[in-house]
Amino acid sequence: MDGSAVMRWETVCVVSGGLDSVVLGHMVRRDTNGPHLWLGFDYGQRHVRELEHADALAATLGVTWRVIDLRTVGALLGGDALTGAHAVPHGHYAHPSMAVTVVPNRNAIMLTIAYGIASAAGATLVATGVHAGDHWVYPDCRPEFAQAMMTMQTVALDGLHTPRLYTPFLHSSKADIVSLGARIGVPMHATWSCYEGGVWHCGRCGTCVERREAFDRAGVADHTKYQDIGGIS
Amino acid sequence: MDGSAVMRWETVCVVSGGLDSVVLGHMVRRDTNGPHLWLGFDYGQRHVRELEHADALAATLGVTWRVIDLRTVGALLGGDALTGAHAVPHGHYAHPSMAVTVVPNRNAIMLTIAYGIASAAGATLVATGVHAGDHWVYPDCRPEFAQAMMTMQTVALDGLHTPRLYTPFLHSSKADIVSLGARIGVPMHATWSCYEGGVWHCGRCGTCVERREAFDRAGVADHTKYQDIGGIS
Repeated sequence: MDGSAVMRWETVCVVSGGLDSVVLGHMVRRDTNGPHLWLGFDYGQRHVRELEHADALAATLGVTWRVIDLRTVGALLGGDALTGAHAVPHGHYAHPSMAVTVVPNRNAIMLTIAYGIASAAGATLVATGVHAGDHWVYPDCRPEFAQAMMTMQTVALDGLHTPRLYTPFLHSSKADIVSLGARIGVPMHATWSCYEGGVWHCGRCGTCVERREAFDRAGVADHTKYQDIGGIS
Repeated sequence: MDGSAVMRWETVCVVSGGLDSVVLGHMVRRDTNGPHLWLGFDYGQRHVRELEHADALAATLGVTWRVIDLRTVGALLGGDALTGAHAVPHGHYAHPSMAVTVVPNRNAIMLTIAYGIASAAGATLVATGVHAGDHWVYPDCRPEFAQAMMTMQTVALDGLHTPRLYTPFLHSSKADIVSLGARIGVPMHATWSCYEGGVWHCGRCGTCVERREAFDRAGVADHTKYQDIGGIS
């Protein structure tokens, strides 16, 4: 610690560098006054391609980007597909095999950290891009979770500055998010979804399939470069 | 990440190396089967004397000790007395001046991390030593907070393994904790409370005053070595 004074932020967005959170970050930047903080999390995932993309996108947009180092947490979470020994599942993202991609409590952990920083900074809101497409697999992306989290934070910060939890995509599909992104001019091709850490999106893992399907359903041209240049498998 | 399988713990205790959490850790070790994990948090506090003491105590007791590195979080929390530029307040711990020692959302952050690890490990409980003496200053030490946290975690981990939140001191004073510690033979002199990072406890900062008062009220001999060897100021 350098003992410096706390920074002042108006909004704190949890941004992974994926499609949903980057559209969220652009939307918040468009609709509210800054300064804006984009907060990424490194919990020892297989690769940090998402975070590199978020960094570049934040610089372009003129918002501040900081990475929270949670690698000591990831080391104790062990064997899941995003941080550990399991193979990344290929195929459709809604298939039961995707349960292996669950990092227990990930959103709860990221949001309590974002809340602590946002409270100290006097921020108006903490934003997260959780959306309806994730409800099936991830319990901490559901409306009941968002409600319980807001309730808990209101109690935990009683008497301190308490930002509002902003979850504009809670009832949206990923296709809805792509439509919005296209409408407000988000450079969606520059976001990163793929679970694998290749040079280009693999096109076949669960999130690549979900990403391609979302562009397709939204009727928005997908300028992502996929290693597999075929159609949706 | 080395891709190794997740560890198996039966209990996960949030342990700072202070008096309350160390008595808690001993109590859990006495009352439940292991293996036990003691989880400490380094968020860039002024000194890590507490954590060093927890490490030594865990080794003596035969429980596992791991430190979660939250220094990148602490760096964004900025100016409070435990992590930043403010002077550590001296005097009585219940005085309004102690509000400067609040790290916003600290317990919420530590507990969501402990819950993620405990869920992955299949643990029965997540234990924290929050107690009634802290209710006045710290909102995230109150019974309403414990209730809201448990509710949030039940929703966030729906369908996954959900440990129980164990808060045995929620309605206890620090003197009650000292009495319990004496009864079950906890080496309380080897715990660390002082906000300052000296060789011995300073005897004058808020937590030192609180510690001395607790031993005094419990009628338990205080074998802590204080730099200030006078009475309670």
